[in-house]
Amino acid sequence: MAEPDPPPPAGLAPAGDGEHEAGRALAALETVAADLERRAGSAGPEAADVLEAQAMMARDPSLAEAVRALTDAGVAAERAVYEAFDGFREALAAAGGYLGARVADLDDLRARAVAVAAGRPMPGVPAREEPFVLVAKDLAPADTAVLDLTRVLALVTEQGGPTSHTAILARARGIPAVVGVAGVLGLADGETVMVDADDGLVLPSPAEQVVAATLARAKARREAARTGGDGTGPILAADGREVRLLANVGGGADVAAAVAAGARGVGLFRTELLYLGTLRPPTFEEQVAAYREVLDGFPGGLVVARTLDAGADKPLPFLPLGEEPNPALGVRGVRAFRGAYEHLLDTQLAALAAAAVDAPAELWVMAPMVTTAEEAAWFAAKAHAAGIAKAGVMIEVPAAALTAQEVLAEVDFASIGTNDLTQYTMAADRLLGSLGALQDAGHPAVLRLVALVAAAGAVLGKPVGVCGEAAADPRLAAELIRLGVTSLSMAPAAIPELRAALTK
Amino acid sequence: MAEPDPPPPAGLAPAGDGEHEAGRALAALETVAADLERRAGSAGPEAADVLEAQAMMARDPSLAEAVRALTDAGVAAERAVYEAFDGFREALAAAGGYLGARVADLDDLRARAVAVAAGRPMPGVPAREEPFVLVAKDLAPADTAVLDLTRVLALVTEQGGPTSHTAILARARGIPAVVGVAGVLGLADGETVMVDADDGLVLPSPAEQVVAATLARAKARREAARTGGDGTGPILAADGREVRLLANVGGGADVAAAVAAGARGVGLFRTELLYLGTLRPPTFEEQVAAYREVLDGFPGGLVVARTLDAGADKPLPFLPLGEEPNPALGVRGVRAFRGAYEHLLDTQLAALAAAAVDAPAELWVMAPMVTTAEEAAWFAAKAHAAGIAKAGVMIEVPAAALTAQEVLAEVDFASIGTNDLTQYTMAADRLLGSLGALQDAGHPAVLRLVALVAAAGAVLGKPVGVCGEAAADPRLAAELIRLGVTSLSMAPAAIPELRAALTK
Repeated sequence: MAEPDPPPPAGLAPAGDGEHEAGRALAALETVAADLERRAGSAGPEAADVLEAQAMMARDPSLAEAVRALTDAGVAAERAVYEAFDGFREALAAAGGYLGARVADLDDLRARAVAVAAGRPMPGVPAREEPFVLVAKDLAPADTAVLDLTRVLALVTEQGGPTSHTAILARARGIPAVVGVAGVLGLADGETVMVDADDGLVLPSPAEQVVAATLARAKARREAARTGGDGTGPILAADGREVRLLANVGGGADVAAAVAAGARGVGLFRTELLYLGTLRPPTFEEQVAAYREVLDGFPGGLVVARTLDAGADKPLPFLPLGEEPNPALGVRGVRAFRGAYEHLLDTQLAALAAAAVDAPAELWVMAPMVTTAEEAAWFAAKAHAAGIAKAGVMIEVPAAALTAQEVLAEVDFASIGTNDLTQYTMAADRLLGSLGALQDAGHPAVLRLVALVAAAGAVLGKPVGVCGEAAADPRLAAELIRLGVTSLSMAPAAIPELRAALTK
Repeated sequence: MAEPDPPPPAGLAPAGDGEHEAGRALAALETVAADLERRAGSAGPEAADVLEAQAMMARDPSLAEAVRALTDAGVAAERAVYEAFDGFREALAAAGGYLGARVADLDDLRARAVAVAAGRPMPGVPAREEPFVLVAKDLAPADTAVLDLTRVLALVTEQGGPTSHTAILARARGIPAVVGVAGVLGLADGETVMVDADDGLVLPSPAEQVVAATLARAKARREAARTGGDGTGPILAADGREVRLLANVGGGADVAAAVAAGARGVGLFRTELLYLGTLRPPTFEEQVAAYREVLDGFPGGLVVARTLDAGADKPLPFLPLGEEPNPALGVRGVRAFRGAYEHLLDTQLAALAAAAVDAPAELWVMAPMVTTAEEAAWFAAKAHAAGIAKAGVMIEVPAAALTAQEVLAEVDFASIGTNDLTQYTMAADRLLGSLGALQDAGHPAVLRLVALVAAAGAVLGKPVGVCGEAAADPRLAAELIRLGVTSLSMAPAAIPELRAALTK
């Protein structure tokens, strides 16, 4: 995946006369238009609309006219393309509203046309017919939104850490990924590469024997995952404690995959899905049905639901939190529901309690972003009053981990969210690939906090799970169990391999 | 300080016919324009530019036209003003860049005009001729930028904690401030109020005897501050250790105030000032001169300089870090200087070392935002190689505090930045007044981290200071000393009172 070029300099010497440069520039626009149209043919309906609109812009006659005027005046093709877009860009921006928001599409189009005119690969996510290994500096959420993951054999990035967007996406989809590989952008386009995500290896042009040995090892691992007991029970820690392997789910649609992966319960039921893409909050009845669907999937098991985790970075029309300079450090999680929006939490707790009545699975409910023992006590009192038997907290703020004894004294259980806990402990944004090296849940600082929480749980006799990405990493998972956590929850696709690794 | 009104509802009934409503709306715009112009006259040059641009926008003929079209169509004056801004707002937002950043100015202008049209006080910082106590829900940095602090007798806010922008600003200027006062917005405009920042009290319409007693107590405190020894030496901890009281300064201009306040040194020399408002980095020679100016101010004393603390929230033209979703968790402090911009740090270290040669004061140099022992070792090696005798780190990331023994093993000293350490430990943005209750450096979680660092310093025989706002709070300062910190550094204005409180 090519990085965008810097803008071509204003004084760039043309390669030929005006006619030649005009030809180069217009050919580049046509190449880009044809590519966009081709991609529109295989994209989903929404993405196709955007791609077709971009193709139309690339073929706009007045754009061609602007290009010609510039090349006639002695401007080089790539610079002419760059400058010709300026007028359109301003017009769109001035129009505001829907059109104004299209400036980003125009900029993407311009970057592609300039790159083609300069004889370089188009920036952005590549569109390929054949399956491929995607190698990128980093993948932003906007990149992966237009990426056809069914064709991606593996993801490799130069930046990013184990809790980066790329790593999480790959784990959720079961795609092998190796992140934070220095120098990987030096690979040539089309080169054969072996990606061994188990061992974090990226090998260009691997020898046949290496490929064979790696495939044999992978096959043995899959075999072990299939044959490890019935593949659904708890695993045993060295001291004989049972550690439950649970699934992270977003709703009923994920239940089948979780069950198939051998999860006998859910360690993190993210309830956000119900609240997204709607102008009003979900009704009590809608919520009861949605929660019940997940509970029905795990007879005799456990479902741990997290109450709505809202924040200024994910604005909801019925929960206007305002813009914040640092949404990750803002009015997030349970903080958003003290005051004007408490009724939203009350409805959710009532619906969760109603869904649990006569359900085949046990329901525990926890609050996100709890920071102080006072907040923990406030939430537990509310949840118990609503009729929920077990009320807990997510431990993702360093303060909550540092005061784990005080916090756990107020609730029935805790679940450590290692992704956010790592982000805050290391003061390194999960969304920034360039800080990948700091986004390390295995750093001693993070593990010391995990140990504090697990120890507090042991002293008070209260379960302490882990539901971040660290739970799915075989080496880290073993360390977390050693520190005393009582359950590990992860993307369903990660469960069989982890079970195999922990029971081998 | 009035809060902005909610937008006037779409169906609001007009008070008169179209002509009458147009008159009301345009009069409101003119009132606001005149007020902005008047304020521009007494503001500094930068603020004056913003205010004059806003006044011009308010008088824009196409805005008046849009208003008229709406009032002619039967829309009420305040709603017409509100809607007329929509087109402008979208055009600016779509333009992005510098113009996009002006949307906030436009919103401020709109809020003012709508309030005037509705016959209510203008939101935002009031402009007064006479000295006054400013009572606000919260003060954003943008509010205080246009606030004439010479007329403010005291600041009182409903939100915000001890490390909030308001509290820091007030302490730096020596203005009494009480933050986080529930219900204080119920005070009437013009009511007499007594603000006792020592005891955190805000008394409306105080009795004469109460005022007299408070003034007498304040006078006694000032007296004690003046007569406590020579007012410049270290103070003694309970165990006989000496604890230095040092000043936070931004450059030579602050030296006189620091010396007058009794500081025999600087615990935090923020070197950012040199790098702001310039298109190229300061030269080696400019830096040497600036550093020497501060060193010359403290013969026989100590100056602890912090290397440039850059970040995406404070973009510098020669250090383009790009936009980040959460700048506080981004490529900040020392992180910005590993890679492409290392030469900027090299020049700064060389200039600091050169300034220290034959200087009358000792120079220590520390790096901001150090997270890991590896970073600490990297910085110390660079600083020592540049000829700096004592290289240290700021401890403001929880990970650095949690691994204090490993980090301190690599350096000569540490200084705890309690403001950022609190922000990350509590995951509560310092810039958000609504999270004031969580911005508490006295929370057990933060104090446990301080204790870890101080203990590591004691074990390794390395000094551990504190240079956040907590150092200036008499109750917290005593606790910090008890935990083992070896120096406290604060705004010069806070030193005499703290000395008095600690030695009484």
